[in-house]
Amino acid sequence: MARALTLAARGAYTTRPNPVVGCVIADGARVVGEGWHARAGEPHAEANALAEAGAAARGATAYVTLEPCAHFGRTPPCADALVAAGVTRVVAAVRDPFYQVAGQGFAKLQAAGITVESGLMEAQARALNRGFFSRIERGRPWLRVKLAMSLDGRTALHDGESKWISSEASRADVMHWRARAGGLLTGIATVLADDPRLTVRLPDDVAFVPPVRIVLDERGRLPHGCRLLTDGAAPTLAVHGDDVVPDYSDELPAFSVRRLDGGGLDLAAVLAQLAQRGIGEVQVEAGATLAGAFLRAGLVDEVLLYIAPVLLGERGRPLFAGLDPATMAERIGLRIVETAHIGPDLRLHLVPGDVPR
Amino acid sequence: MARALTLAARGAYTTRPNPVVGCVIADGARVVGEGWHARAGEPHAEANALAEAGAAARGATAYVTLEPCAHFGRTPPCADALVAAGVTRVVAAVRDPFYQVAGQGFAKLQAAGITVESGLMEAQARALNRGFFSRIERGRPWLRVKLAMSLDGRTALHDGESKWISSEASRADVMHWRARAGGLLTGIATVLADDPRLTVRLPDDVAFVPPVRIVLDERGRLPHGCRLLTDGAAPTLAVHGDDVVPDYSDELPAFSVRRLDGGGLDLAAVLAQLAQRGIGEVQVEAGATLAGAFLRAGLVDEVLLYIAPVLLGERGRPLFAGLDPATMAERIGLRIVETAHIGPDLRLHLVPGDVPR
Repeated sequence: MARALTLAARGAYTTRPNPVVGCVIADGARVVGEGWHARAGEPHAEANALAEAGAAARGATAYVTLEPCAHFGRTPPCADALVAAGVTRVVAAVRDPFYQVAGQGFAKLQAAGITVESGLMEAQARALNRGFFSRIERGRPWLRVKLAMSLDGRTALHDGESKWISSEASRADVMHWRARAGGLLTGIATVLADDPRLTVRLPDDVAFVPPVRIVLDERGRLPHGCRLLTDGAAPTLAVHGDDVVPDYSDELPAFSVRRLDGGGLDLAAVLAQLAQRGIGEVQVEAGATLAGAFLRAGLVDEVLLYIAPVLLGERGRPLFAGLDPATMAERIGLRIVETAHIGPDLRLHLVPGDVPR
Repeated sequence: MARALTLAARGAYTTRPNPVVGCVIADGARVVGEGWHARAGEPHAEANALAEAGAAARGATAYVTLEPCAHFGRTPPCADALVAAGVTRVVAAVRDPFYQVAGQGFAKLQAAGITVESGLMEAQARALNRGFFSRIERGRPWLRVKLAMSLDGRTALHDGESKWISSEASRADVMHWRARAGGLLTGIATVLADDPRLTVRLPDDVAFVPPVRIVLDERGRLPHGCRLLTDGAAPTLAVHGDDVVPDYSDELPAFSVRRLDGGGLDLAAVLAQLAQRGIGEVQVEAGATLAGAFLRAGLVDEVLLYIAPVLLGERGRPLFAGLDPATMAERIGLRIVETAHIGPDLRLHLVPGDVPR
């Protein structure tokens, strides 16, 4: 199963909106076939592994990182293919929560007399498809907030200048995190200030599906000439308040949600709509205001924080705006789950947590 | 020599104002004696190693982390002892810069026909005694600024409340850094706000010499009832402006330096006086104002930064006060030299450096 998970991860930049899946077919200790899902519309992991195994699949065990599908999508059901190939045992890491599968894959296999087990390395399998599970089980994408700050916790000088706080090495590292996201979300303030591209720049030999660029444009101020609308490098999606009628081009995909009292968009509603559009993992790359708003709304699943060993001074912009705990007891807790040195910088991975003691 | 350095480090909490020194006496590959200096007034490393070696020192090589002394201090000269023991070769890591040694130890050995080499693992030997070298070579102590901040770069809430940002594990870790310092320096603002103890709290079986507690008390406002003056746990030293006459008790050691235009003390002058008083390593434990003043004065050699994974919000107190680079090009650079996980917190070790690219 560990091998199957490694295979599955090869699809991290390309399978969207499908989950990543890996499959290993083994006859006892001997591996007879391996496969992974590479791209939506192309063969599933099981089909690829069965093709490699050929006749050797008969009587073998299939290890698969997600319950085999039971429905006709763009490819035929994998459960049928496993039955046809004569596999006698299927070990899955986790049940597929998608309504057209949801146990029906297992049922089909069992009906054909195949022994089915589920739950081996389930935590790892869920983590690998955290966006997919979040979208289906919670009805909202997995939300990662990417931030770069100075050692003294500032994301920009007081005048907003922030090019560049983090090193080239960190900016290159970010590209890998962008590539695995279904959507890159920013705010209109960032678009107006920096005219960002929000594209994935990776070496030519790394394949990826360009993430959708999402702009929270409360009052419909997105300029027609900005890069997001003119560079054609990736799809762009605008979200505006339902009380404004923006002069967007007809070709610009957009939707509206209600605005909250403070004037900002209802972020939970934004995320619900993104999940409905098949976006499973969203990376927020915005300023302190929007990052703070997501955090205050309790919608942040993960913080990816690059710390550059520089000082920007006490007038620099804060990491998260709008946070102001009145007492130490009210401070907001996170948990460091990983630390890495990226060039001269430090990269922290954090998840919401209790305040540590 | 690596072994001798390890032995030397055992004295890190206790030899002050003396340097730490380790010595290994070897006959070819066979170690015949080991020693280290434990406490000022007690035998030097060489004497301890020679005592262990006994007659086996004759014809052997002595590896010593610092040039053997040549003068009568509280103990007789080690150079004489090495000659008397019949050692035929001395390998030292580094020359002793102290004026009463400064090559005279080597000269004495050579005059007696002993082969002398110096420079083996010199960088490590200098690092081990960085306070001693700094005091003698630069005329000021090695300055370490210890800070604890939240993930968003705040050292306290806006009202100054800071108990506790970092975890128990980090606060215990700090004690080891305090124990190796000759002085713990704080500002009058911290004394008035927190009435700190600035003592070393370590398990009973760990011996240490209590560091001197130094208060920068510009205008002579140190309260007679504060813990630093009443608890008797360690010596306290007050520094005031030379334009004020504080009502200190006669028993309180104190000195004055001139005040700068902003009202603060001339920090370089403070450090020069501390070096003259035999203090080689100073740990600053103060608020953002004093930490920022040392940084702006270019007097910081090392930053020990504990980062707790909590958020204190945008109104929280800054890491260093008084820093305000106008452009990204003017931002202040540091270099991360070590990262460690201490309980839930992260501990960074930084040194001043160029702005990384």
